[in-house]
Amino acid sequence: MNSTGLKFVATAVRTLTMDAIQKANSGHPGLPMGCAELGALLFGEILKHFPGDPEWINRDRFVLSAGHGSMLLYSLLHLSGYDLSLEDIKNFRQLGSKTPGHPEYGVTPGVETTTGPLGQGLANAVGMAIAERMLAARFNTDSRRVIDHYTYVLAGDGDLMEGVSSEACSLAGHLGLGKLIVFYDSNHITIEGSTDLAFTEDVLKRFEAYNWQAFSADAYDLEGIVKVVEEAKKDTNKPALIKINSIIAKGAPNLAGSHKTHGAPLGDEEVREAKRAIGVPDPEGSLFYIPAEAKAYFTGRKEVWDEEYKNWKVSFSAWSEENPELFKQWKQFFNDQRPKPVQGLPQYKEGDKLATRKAGGQALNVLAENIPNLIGGSADLAPSNSTYLKGMGSFQKDNHLGRNLHFGVREHAMGAIVNGITLHGGLRAFCATFLVFSDYMRPAIRMAALMSLPVIYVFTHDSVFVGEDGPTHEPVEQLAALRTIPGLLVLRPSDAEETNAAWIQAINHIDGPSALILTRQSLTVFAKEDSNWRENMPRGAYIVKDSKGRPEIVIVATGSEVNLALEIQQQLGSDKVRVISMVSRSLFLKEKEAYGKELIPDGSHRVVLEAGVAQGWGEIAGSGGMIRSIERFGESGPGKKVYEYLGFNAGEIAALIRRVFASS
Amino acid sequence: MNSTGLKFVATAVRTLTMDAIQKANSGHPGLPMGCAELGALLFGEILKHFPGDPEWINRDRFVLSAGHGSMLLYSLLHLSGYDLSLEDIKNFRQLGSKTPGHPEYGVTPGVETTTGPLGQGLANAVGMAIAERMLAARFNTDSRRVIDHYTYVLAGDGDLMEGVSSEACSLAGHLGLGKLIVFYDSNHITIEGSTDLAFTEDVLKRFEAYNWQAFSADAYDLEGIVKVVEEAKKDTNKPALIKINSIIAKGAPNLAGSHKTHGAPLGDEEVREAKRAIGVPDPEGSLFYIPAEAKAYFTGRKEVWDEEYKNWKVSFSAWSEENPELFKQWKQFFNDQRPKPVQGLPQYKEGDKLATRKAGGQALNVLAENIPNLIGGSADLAPSNSTYLKGMGSFQKDNHLGRNLHFGVREHAMGAIVNGITLHGGLRAFCATFLVFSDYMRPAIRMAALMSLPVIYVFTHDSVFVGEDGPTHEPVEQLAALRTIPGLLVLRPSDAEETNAAWIQAINHIDGPSALILTRQSLTVFAKEDSNWRENMPRGAYIVKDSKGRPEIVIVATGSEVNLALEIQQQLGSDKVRVISMVSRSLFLKEKEAYGKELIPDGSHRVVLEAGVAQGWGEIAGSGGMIRSIERFGESGPGKKVYEYLGFNAGEIAALIRRVFASS
Repeated sequence: MNSTGLKFVATAVRTLTMDAIQKANSGHPGLPMGCAELGALLFGEILKHFPGDPEWINRDRFVLSAGHGSMLLYSLLHLSGYDLSLEDIKNFRQLGSKTPGHPEYGVTPGVETTTGPLGQGLANAVGMAIAERMLAARFNTDSRRVIDHYTYVLAGDGDLMEGVSSEACSLAGHLGLGKLIVFYDSNHITIEGSTDLAFTEDVLKRFEAYNWQAFSADAYDLEGIVKVVEEAKKDTNKPALIKINSIIAKGAPNLAGSHKTHGAPLGDEEVREAKRAIGVPDPEGSLFYIPAEAKAYFTGRKEVWDEEYKNWKVSFSAWSEENPELFKQWKQFFNDQRPKPVQGLPQYKEGDKLATRKAGGQALNVLAENIPNLIGGSADLAPSNSTYLKGMGSFQKDNHLGRNLHFGVREHAMGAIVNGITLHGGLRAFCATFLVFSDYMRPAIRMAALMSLPVIYVFTHDSVFVGEDGPTHEPVEQLAALRTIPGLLVLRPSDAEETNAAWIQAINHIDGPSALILTRQSLTVFAKEDSNWRENMPRGAYIVKDSKGRPEIVIVATGSEVNLALEIQQQLGSDKVRVISMVSRSLFLKEKEAYGKELIPDGSHRVVLEAGVAQGWGEIAGSGGMIRSIERFGESGPGKKVYEYLGFNAGEIAALIRRVFASS
Repeated sequence: MNSTGLKFVATAVRTLTMDAIQKANSGHPGLPMGCAELGALLFGEILKHFPGDPEWINRDRFVLSAGHGSMLLYSLLHLSGYDLSLEDIKNFRQLGSKTPGHPEYGVTPGVETTTGPLGQGLANAVGMAIAERMLAARFNTDSRRVIDHYTYVLAGDGDLMEGVSSEACSLAGHLGLGKLIVFYDSNHITIEGSTDLAFTEDVLKRFEAYNWQAFSADAYDLEGIVKVVEEAKKDTNKPALIKINSIIAKGAPNLAGSHKTHGAPLGDEEVREAKRAIGVPDPEGSLFYIPAEAKAYFTGRKEVWDEEYKNWKVSFSAWSEENPELFKQWKQFFNDQRPKPVQGLPQYKEGDKLATRKAGGQALNVLAENIPNLIGGSADLAPSNSTYLKGMGSFQKDNHLGRNLHFGVREHAMGAIVNGITLHGGLRAFCATFLVFSDYMRPAIRMAALMSLPVIYVFTHDSVFVGEDGPTHEPVEQLAALRTIPGLLVLRPSDAEETNAAWIQAINHIDGPSALILTRQSLTVFAKEDSNWRENMPRGAYIVKDSKGRPEIVIVATGSEVNLALEIQQQLGSDKVRVISMVSRSLFLKEKEAYGKELIPDGSHRVVLEAGVAQGWGEIAGSGGMIRSIERFGESGPGKKVYEYLGFNAGEIAALIRRVFASS
């Protein structure tokens, strides 16, 4: 280990951090300066990586969970040779730059996940470590380990206070993810002041309780840290937490150790003094100074990395020739995300009665047969969500081939972990819970949408039809709330056939997350007058039952309300009524206007039916339209009774339609 | 301790549970049967309570965090003499009954909080225990302890897996809440099967790491449990976790110990066999059987409770006479939630520039001077949220008089804890974080709304104007998502004066929660042409700047977009433009139609401005209206630049308005 070289790298991290933040007049100098040495050590000595190919599948993953310390990451990406120029560093936090305020996946080469909302990154890393184990079990042979890497995290106090990280780390310990190593930057400082204000637990003991290894080290004793990492790696069945005792903003002569350095620039004078103290030759003049020794250090490292990378390539090539079947599968896992036309989906006939969660479970099982890298699980509700992959085993400490994940009652971590699995590459992941509990994982769903990750959410028990469990378990506002998330495809199919189609649609949607909204109760499979409904459904909506000639009344319904709409149409006994199933409102609104007007002609009376809050349906109903919605919490009682009590009764709605639209 | 009596009470819990669930054909028998003895012990021997006055302020609180075990609670409430009849029990899970599927606050006397969404109840209990300490510190004297009670919780594995409980319990340990005692029903069963599938951590050790006492006991050794509780009470500076080793559905001869009993009726035959096994005299015939000994047991207990209750009343009366000043304050705390007209709010003048978070912080501090029981805090963002109550101290282990809570980076627990503080009674609570992180605490906000609790949320940094921190920190969909929650009053004031008024409005809104949405950046205080704006603002909207005569164009804006709307109006240079500030869309839509038409006349062109997703604005904009919104995630860059980049530029919008509405 070239300690002198690393010392200069740390100096470069500090100067780049201070100057970039000063120039932007915005940023968080505390962590990058406090962890400059650790960062240098990670990027220089600990990480197996290859800056020339940030997508190298067998690289170690590094997650900066404390994303506000982005300048640590940007500095090191630049110094170690990633495609991030000094010009990019100078554009820190500017519109359109490759150096946004918090690290963003897809924006900056070498950034493994978008972090900033605390706890998410650490939980993502648990997902990455799971993915590594899954892929290693599938592809490694006795003689060659094509997937064999570590996942490292740098987390702060905030990350460890957040519940999502507690959930994820408890599961990581349960699963024995021995190749996950978390550095916990313990600097005793939070925004409000000392961590003593709110956080005095024994973190190491907590992690031991989770079945982790727990260590301590001094942030500025690099040999000590290296020893601890070596020690941690000896136990391959336990993840490791290494508490790094650091000083926030170390190097700032007057402000080091102060909470003032967490989230604000140090100020010109303090920066000058800091530069003087850490030995920058021209503290007054030089900006974005990088010692020549820091550059030389990474030039030296590059030779080693080139060799490692080349060796893996050679080994991989040999492996692919030795194992043609495995290599074929590898290509399916890594290149061919979009499935061939799926064979064997269950067929339904008109009048069949089954819950869309059941239909969803059957479709999912067929898809899993077709798509070997489809994996996932539920937050302890697999039997209720119908998401268990039959005969495909459970992923556990002793079975890395299992395709069912048991997340426990940990929705939030589940969401963040499937993000991490997806980010790792090679796997397609779904997860499941009740729709009402989508609230628990909302911050992770947001991150999936922000990163355009093709995660699939299965949300069952989708309305007050949940019934007896009552208002705590009856989603009323969740559908509308999910629809507010930019880039999340929300699909609410109306019967078993549509559920098949929705699953296919979700699988083919690889530019972002999808949410399937499914019922607890049985729905009746209905005839579809639009013979092209399978092609039209992905446009957001299609005609289920048409009027004779131009419709006077158009009933737009989603999910279980399509069954109701058909009943209403029948009760109206009118051939002027058209029923539309709108599986995705957002897709429908994105369609060309012509399709919209074709389905809902100008001048028609509109009735919208959805057993949830109306927010957002005004655009479909238009002025003078009728929306039957639920603007309150639900009730405990048999599902059908609650549904009717809250206004979803065919007879009543038919009568109302007659009355309101009679004059016309 | 009358062990025989308790045994019969446990039998009654089992019979009532089995029969009620069988009759409803829905419910969760596992927990009530497994914990029947513990429940009997709690309601019979451990709790200080008085069923005749479930509102008694000095009662011990009991929270069934594992709310699915509601029949345990209902059985015991009925048996111990609360206003819950056998008829009510027979109506379990029926529409309009006092025995909904999960316990609901406000529906059933003796239910302290609505539980079901796991983890919430335990976190509520932490809030209740905080409230007890706060009130005790204020009102107890050396000679009399008018507030002196315990908070007990029964939690299951699911509660302890959820991150919200980790957050809350870490904080409870930090705060040394010695009068919080949690029974952890460890039955090794979850919905998917054994807890070994996902939950193998050492829970006791984890809680010790949180600075809790941790004990184990056998669920069926009542003397053993009593001893542990006595032991736990000896240390008044640490909360206690007591792991209760139980067998799920104990008493069911064939199904006890099986995950099948968690959430489904046992079936008629198993119920008959169970009744036979536990000694019900007529297992075939008798339904809802209660042994006479069980009734006799509680008759005996009533005498003791009467005495305890009477003694407290006498002591309280003496206390109120001995301490007239304290008693005056007591009445303010417990009876007079609605403040007198508030004195001393800062005055602003036209043209003043300040962020609404700053104005909010100033208003809050004045309100705290006026309202002595107003307390609260932030999830480690008090300096950023401007929510610190100056000179009012921090609530800590050694300062129970402090009015500032330091929640740490634990938004979800914060939300659930303020619910618990509010449920306890005697205190008015607020909490704060960035708007984007409202997602982290959404399940707790939902519970506040469901329970109609007057919690106040301060959500600052309310748009892409957050700027440099980038998309992870820029709320785009949160405003719309919060507006979907039934009963949550969302207020987005537009300048410092409106912020004063919004705070007053939130304080006076005592039937449910309120969310104040405040800016990070400065806004300019503007002239208000409506001289009655203070009276009209609570109607949802008012006219900021009017047109001359009937408006051709009405610009509706919220928050920071009102400043923009005024700029647009000026650029249009037209006297046909009206600008409306819509602080609350939901209140506006609830107003009588006349007010709506007065503000936004039929035939006017509407322009809606809000820097977030448009969902829900269609109803205001109407057909042909223009909505300027943000249907994507934000960007990292200086706030004003991001705002303009995403379409919020006065010149551009003015030009667009001219173009679109020119022809008219």
